[in-house]
Amino acid sequence: MKVLVLNCGSSSLKYQLIDMDNEAVLCKGLVERIGIDGSILKHEKDGMDGKHIVEEAMKDHKDAIKHVLDAVADPKVGAVKEMSEIDAVGHRIVHGGEKFASSAVLTDEVIKAIEYCTELAPLHNPANLMGVEACKAILPDVPMVGVFDTAFHQTMPEKSFLYGLPYELYTKHGVRRYGFHGTSHMYVSQKAAEMLDKKPEDLKIITCHLGNGASLTAVDGGKSVDTTMGLTPLEGLIMGTRCGDIDPAIIPFIMKKENLDIAGVDKLMNKESGVLGMTGISSDFRDIEDAATEGNELAQTTLEAYAQKVKKYIGAYAAEMNGVDAIVFTAGLGENGISMREMICKNMDFMGVKLDAEKNNVRGKDRIISADDSKVKILLIPTNEELMIAKDTVKLSK
Amino acid sequence: MKVLVLNCGSSSLKYQLIDMDNEAVLCKGLVERIGIDGSILKHEKDGMDGKHIVEEAMKDHKDAIKHVLDAVADPKVGAVKEMSEIDAVGHRIVHGGEKFASSAVLTDEVIKAIEYCTELAPLHNPANLMGVEACKAILPDVPMVGVFDTAFHQTMPEKSFLYGLPYELYTKHGVRRYGFHGTSHMYVSQKAAEMLDKKPEDLKIITCHLGNGASLTAVDGGKSVDTTMGLTPLEGLIMGTRCGDIDPAIIPFIMKKENLDIAGVDKLMNKESGVLGMTGISSDFRDIEDAATEGNELAQTTLEAYAQKVKKYIGAYAAEMNGVDAIVFTAGLGENGISMREMICKNMDFMGVKLDAEKNNVRGKDRIISADDSKVKILLIPTNEELMIAKDTVKLSK
Repeated sequence: MKVLVLNCGSSSLKYQLIDMDNEAVLCKGLVERIGIDGSILKHEKDGMDGKHIVEEAMKDHKDAIKHVLDAVADPKVGAVKEMSEIDAVGHRIVHGGEKFASSAVLTDEVIKAIEYCTELAPLHNPANLMGVEACKAILPDVPMVGVFDTAFHQTMPEKSFLYGLPYELYTKHGVRRYGFHGTSHMYVSQKAAEMLDKKPEDLKIITCHLGNGASLTAVDGGKSVDTTMGLTPLEGLIMGTRCGDIDPAIIPFIMKKENLDIAGVDKLMNKESGVLGMTGISSDFRDIEDAATEGNELAQTTLEAYAQKVKKYIGAYAAEMNGVDAIVFTAGLGENGISMREMICKNMDFMGVKLDAEKNNVRGKDRIISADDSKVKILLIPTNEELMIAKDTVKLSK
Repeated sequence: MKVLVLNCGSSSLKYQLIDMDNEAVLCKGLVERIGIDGSILKHEKDGMDGKHIVEEAMKDHKDAIKHVLDAVADPKVGAVKEMSEIDAVGHRIVHGGEKFASSAVLTDEVIKAIEYCTELAPLHNPANLMGVEACKAILPDVPMVGVFDTAFHQTMPEKSFLYGLPYELYTKHGVRRYGFHGTSHMYVSQKAAEMLDKKPEDLKIITCHLGNGASLTAVDGGKSVDTTMGLTPLEGLIMGTRCGDIDPAIIPFIMKKENLDIAGVDKLMNKESGVLGMTGISSDFRDIEDAATEGNELAQTTLEAYAQKVKKYIGAYAAEMNGVDAIVFTAGLGENGISMREMICKNMDFMGVKLDAEKNNVRGKDRIISADDSKVKILLIPTNEELMIAKDTVKLSK
């Protein structure tokens, strides 16, 4: 069974074609600048030399998906002979609100429910749905499944998802913690159980998804019981360009001081903050590590502040679960940040966390990186959201 | 030496006269509705039957302080024969910004520096200064000392006090974590060391000041290294009417949804949130506990959310300090909330925290309430900010 996995942003789109018989990625690619001058598709398939590039005007997501399907079925660079070999399409959907605690076949009713969640994710959900509509138009008879970033976190108890705000804001406007990166947190927590040869039900795991967006999740017995992101993906850790937790009173304060309106302060917190705003250097940790190595003190402090924030949430979630059996690192910085993992795990022996410096000297591989005598296991697991989406798609489209 | 301790709000004022030879409170009281119809002074002295009430118009803080001094020197209800027996006055000042890492004699220069901090605490500092000015006018020759709520936290390292926001907001507008309740956190952490017969330098302590406003502090070797309140006293724990930590993106979201301006959202977060907003019942925990006992599920969830938040910060600070030797509870709920202390400390044995239910069955007394075999000591210590203010006043006015 071959599954196409689609992740549509407002002007971009990522895809993978996965053969679910052996979980192999047959081909994958990226379209950028959809609906903007300079649309470009970059396609690659296993064993291919370089990338297949298509530079043609793509006025909307339908146009873009047509080009994707052309590439996928291309006799030279493609992976199937004809489009009909695509058995199902799995779509990443960012916000499923409280409606979706698991993946769902994209019926008209489900699409309406996703539209209803749009006010909670005004940038993401409409883009995701554009992809769904475009796919439905081109492949009307292929089953489509939606996999939600929020679904895994729907097991959180009220004490974790309610804010200290008037309860009407929850009942009237849905103001609560939803959490994101759910597909990734679910994947790496299940994989960790597998690597430790245990059942997820028997483990307390803290999963650290440290990418440009970053979040931690407390997974108790296989279920998300708390997570750092909230109503939106802004809360929690310091990120590439997002501020994470701040005193909420700062917002009215800087709106007045800097004469910002709602859109202005939103942009400041989402696009101009995080390690980029703190250092003025970059949202990329490699640049900040380089600067710190060259003696830039603010870069060094920023790395320390970032690590401390992760460390504090690890302690918080251990307290919440009354212990932790395993800590998992994943996503860009989690998979590649050797020294960042070291900074985070350093001086945590009071709770039985002990990294093995040598084992930790690795990037992007499934590996246990804790010392043999570490009570808490530390794991490095490259995330694979596409595979999770494809698996759910297979399950639901049968 | 007799010290008058003053804590001035915008329309109220609390005072104590303390004999520093034996640390006895000679008399104390409260003035309410200063500058408003119905001004009232309630004065009491040790051994006195009931309270001495003065109901007279008090148009400003100078008027109010005149009545306070009249009561303090009153032949019947007073504690001194004449005003000249007051050797010094200690003033509580809420915000000392980065200028004050310790208490200071209130010279003209110091007062100017406090005025400069007013933009960080627009409600509190001007009220504090009204009290200073009024006192100086009436007692021109008596030494005056300012004791700052923020001073104890000035030892926090940058990684604890910087937010994930553009660095210019710090250099330009002073946007950073300051922390509050410093006098209380300092007092109970020092008292805890004394009760444990250890030096503060040798201890890692987490102090939980749980009053209507509430904050936790990580005290490592006698110094504050992190605290839950931030630029303002809004951040951190869920409080009586304050929301504490929320996804900062909620603010633009509800400003739009509820059509609120800056003042409106400020009021919502500071006055209409917390356990009051969550339950719709009260900002007083006794009312919420009663409701929970009667089967109100939202009240029960609110108590659980409150306890979980405290628990998470205890875990976070233990991780930050790589361990904790003692946890201290103080202030209204911390001193009297028997079942809340139990909820917080329950299921924390993974980190060696074990409450003794019987020892915990106490209100408002210095006592060690952990089990004998608890690795982490748990202490109940009634706070005494007035005594701390008086001590610093003696030290600086000599």
